[in-house]
Amino acid sequence: MGVSAIVGVGNQSDLDEDDLLTFFEEDDETHVIAMHCEDLKDGRSFAEVASRVSKKKPVIVLKAGRTALGARVASSHTGALAGNDKIYDDVLRQCGVIRAPGLRDMLEYTRALQKLPTPKGENVVIITGAGGSGVLLSDAVVMNGLNLMRMPPDLDKAFRQFIPPFGAAGNPVDITGGEPPATYKNTIRLGLEDPRIHSLILGYWHTIITPPMVFARLVVEVVEEMKRKGIDKPIVASLAGDVQVEEAAEHLYDHGIPAYAYSTEIPVAVLGAKYRWARGAGLIK
Amino acid sequence: MGVSAIVGVGNQSDLDEDDLLTFFEEDDETHVIAMHCEDLKDGRSFAEVASRVSKKKPVIVLKAGRTALGARVASSHTGALAGNDKIYDDVLRQCGVIRAPGLRDMLEYTRALQKLPTPKGENVVIITGAGGSGVLLSDAVVMNGLNLMRMPPDLDKAFRQFIPPFGAAGNPVDITGGEPPATYKNTIRLGLEDPRIHSLILGYWHTIITPPMVFARLVVEVVEEMKRKGIDKPIVASLAGDVQVEEAAEHLYDHGIPAYAYSTEIPVAVLGAKYRWARGAGLIK
Repeated sequence: MGVSAIVGVGNQSDLDEDDLLTFFEEDDETHVIAMHCEDLKDGRSFAEVASRVSKKKPVIVLKAGRTALGARVASSHTGALAGNDKIYDDVLRQCGVIRAPGLRDMLEYTRALQKLPTPKGENVVIITGAGGSGVLLSDAVVMNGLNLMRMPPDLDKAFRQFIPPFGAAGNPVDITGGEPPATYKNTIRLGLEDPRIHSLILGYWHTIITPPMVFARLVVEVVEEMKRKGIDKPIVASLAGDVQVEEAAEHLYDHGIPAYAYSTEIPVAVLGAKYRWARGAGLIK
Repeated sequence: MGVSAIVGVGNQSDLDEDDLLTFFEEDDETHVIAMHCEDLKDGRSFAEVASRVSKKKPVIVLKAGRTALGARVASSHTGALAGNDKIYDDVLRQCGVIRAPGLRDMLEYTRALQKLPTPKGENVVIITGAGGSGVLLSDAVVMNGLNLMRMPPDLDKAFRQFIPPFGAAGNPVDITGGEPPATYKNTIRLGLEDPRIHSLILGYWHTIITPPMVFARLVVEVVEEMKRKGIDKPIVASLAGDVQVEEAAEHLYDHGIPAYAYSTEIPVAVLGAKYRWARGAGLIK
């Protein structure tokens, strides 16, 4: 996943988290900092350093000992005083630190955040080949604190010229399940070209008309065409289908689009993490 | 993943979810029923049928339209009235139906529940080669409504004879990170043999002394030795390390032990789902 350094802090008799954050703040090889910890011995100092560093690069924290039981186990394991989780939650948020709910999430956020460009605004649009995915993705949008753009009538009309009349209007843009590659291409291109849209969530559902690798390649093509025009927006993708979607997701990921097989939650969660970071760092007006 | 049937209900002009549940209740090829739905048109009838069927086999539901936005999108997509999510949540729980929070969870629960034997009681023990995993697994135990067994002094003493003096006492059983295969074997065997323990959660952390595949093979060996003695308890495993842990997780899964690379949450979540089902079906005293 592109790891610049791994540090185990041990008993922190000398160096602690603050020192490491300060070091990696200046390290040009490091774009995202992920931390697993059971306590923070000097909370005030950590807050000061983390607030500064998180303005420059994302700091992701997996704080173990969230529950009273977990905290007791942490204490018998390393002597950590895991403390009141609510306080950690508030402090980390105030510092602009992104808290990961679990180990896998920490790894997914870390991998995706260095791929995603910083969004220029809050307007998120879902383009989906399956209405069912559109519903699940919409749920995930709300649960991850994202804002589904209210579709302006002219833009709605522009999308509608590409999709069948029984496709659902508005946002999600439901292109329906039987569409050829051109429909995906046209709608994704429009989503990238219109400056009112700041981020895209793609929902793909396996069809014979547009198979997984065809979908993956066309997305990469449109994205690279747009990059040549200077347009670079965060895009994530959710792919459902048979095992071919795994290869398609990998192809997308390799080309800068975090994509996940069999999940409508993870793509939206990583986009949500990117937004939380960008807001905390004052990068979104 | 061993799929006996896939049914799309369409607009349900004739057959609906209740009919399908009734059909698969009697189908011997079907061990677990997973459903994705946006609404339940006849809630009373569904509750009646689901309550009966879930006593025989697990029914897992991914209910889309959890949020107000998702519900609105569902309604424009299929005309579904997704309704108040709290009510769905209560009704599904009362029916003994296991609700999956997301698509990936639904798939993981479905795959794992048919592998895991039904637990005979509530006492869960964590055996871990890494204290840090023990803390994260303990958090997950609480968040998934499981009960970490209070370790009886004689059993604690029995575990301690196998682990170094600096290993943590109690539950989690922290065997520490530098141990050879024999320590894993002895502690897991004890965990399976003692009738007061009903389920095991294994935390593996990649070491050179006990590499991933060595760990996976020894677990399978002990489990099969115990099965020959008539002992069969639910076991799940969390594996952290380099890519070798993926192969090890697959080997474990192929031998009836749901195992997950890079996650301390998913193994505990699937065990939690098995417990929720077993409690609802009245199979745990």
